[in-house]
Amino acid sequence: MTDAVSYPSHEDDVTLTPIGRISSDYPDKFGVPRQPGLVPAGRAVLHLLPPFDDPQTVRGLERISHLWLTFIFHRSPKRWTPLVRPPRLGGNAKLGVFATRSTHRPNRLGLSLVELERIETTSGVRLYLRGHDLIDGTPVLDIKPYLPWAESRPDAQAGFAPDAPASHPVVFSPEAEATLAQRDDSDSLHELIIQVLGQDPRPAYHGDTPTRVYGVFLRDVNVRFRAVVEAGNNTIMKVLEITRYQK
Amino acid sequence: MTDAVSYPSHEDDVTLTPIGRISSDYPDKFGVPRQPGLVPAGRAVLHLLPPFDDPQTVRGLERISHLWLTFIFHRSPKRWTPLVRPPRLGGNAKLGVFATRSTHRPNRLGLSLVELERIETTSGVRLYLRGHDLIDGTPVLDIKPYLPWAESRPDAQAGFAPDAPASHPVVFSPEAEATLAQRDDSDSLHELIIQVLGQDPRPAYHGDTPTRVYGVFLRDVNVRFRAVVEAGNNTIMKVLEITRYQK
Repeated sequence: MTDAVSYPSHEDDVTLTPIGRISSDYPDKFGVPRQPGLVPAGRAVLHLLPPFDDPQTVRGLERISHLWLTFIFHRSPKRWTPLVRPPRLGGNAKLGVFATRSTHRPNRLGLSLVELERIETTSGVRLYLRGHDLIDGTPVLDIKPYLPWAESRPDAQAGFAPDAPASHPVVFSPEAEATLAQRDDSDSLHELIIQVLGQDPRPAYHGDTPTRVYGVFLRDVNVRFRAVVEAGNNTIMKVLEITRYQK
Repeated sequence: MTDAVSYPSHEDDVTLTPIGRISSDYPDKFGVPRQPGLVPAGRAVLHLLPPFDDPQTVRGLERISHLWLTFIFHRSPKRWTPLVRPPRLGGNAKLGVFATRSTHRPNRLGLSLVELERIETTSGVRLYLRGHDLIDGTPVLDIKPYLPWAESRPDAQAGFAPDAPASHPVVFSPEAEATLAQRDDSDSLHELIIQVLGQDPRPAYHGDTPTRVYGVFLRDVNVRFRAVVEAGNNTIMKVLEITRYQK
């Protein structure tokens, strides 16, 4: 173990090829949960791409319940800055980019722990996932099994993000309820909306626009909502309407 | 969420730049623990490389106890096969490469959970790590804080690798003990040897060469050892001698 370290050159760069691509409940960045486990109802399909779509590549994976996906934040800018403002700190405090899970980071690498629901290998290879945080179209670079005996460390100290963020109540207008009731995926979409809005996806700065209406895209709908501050200073999320949108 | 998926082209390739490089107790592949937590005594230094070596990039990281490192298995071949033989299955059974943590995989991406011992920013940025499984010279692509509330999932099902592998007893010859006693790092090297050999680093196929002497490189020494099968069929690791080697 020496202190010597060689300096970088473009010779050290590595070129990687996506092994798969995500089809997701999240067509857009806004509304994507800030960590995968926060929205268990979030669903995605990972389609393996040739030449990685040989069913042999996933033999034995059916005995694995949780997977690591390494992917590219393909909708994030390539530029990065040494300091970022994590939403968990209200957008006020700056932390080093490597002390956060920010999507604006060198190499734009993402890492998510997801649940594997089932595998289909009849036509190519498709992994059905739950509890993810991946935008539609995300290129995936690797899949690894989660190893609980090595990677479950409940006593680890996580600094500014020691616990899961609290969830807010979500209520629906009669119009939104009526739209939901007409859909085949009524129950699962209802659950998804509650979990996504419960995390308060609004940007950190919103103190001056309390009545603003936001729209979050989930599956094929635009969920228009507003945050309402109630007595006791509790914030609830109110779904105003749910409309179809065209990708 | 559609079933359509676009086919890959080289346009989808991504070029990534190492943000740091590892100096490690492990100069060579042979002997590296098969998961990072198995050898807590294993030490490494991650040197950030320019332009990522701005101390601001790690501001706040001192409050984080465990880090994810995403890196390249730079000593593994670039070729890969859909099926691999994990050492945990004795080298006999084949599993899909994405169902394993094999180092011979598409994109050669590694993922390790390591302990952060301390940070030095007086001259560049150095992260002092413990409990790692990284070979000297490993290029690191990303550093992320471990989030126990999201990533500690003790109930996950891990198929063929549900538990940590058992550890074997390690004994030292008088010659090896004498060599160790003369070193400044006597205690920590002793601990490292016990943890590394306890994992039985021999290749899976060794049934026909029970008396073979192996050498594992740790720090600046070659640790020559043999596996001895005792009464009751227990295997102990016997350190025969410890010699200096030149890189």
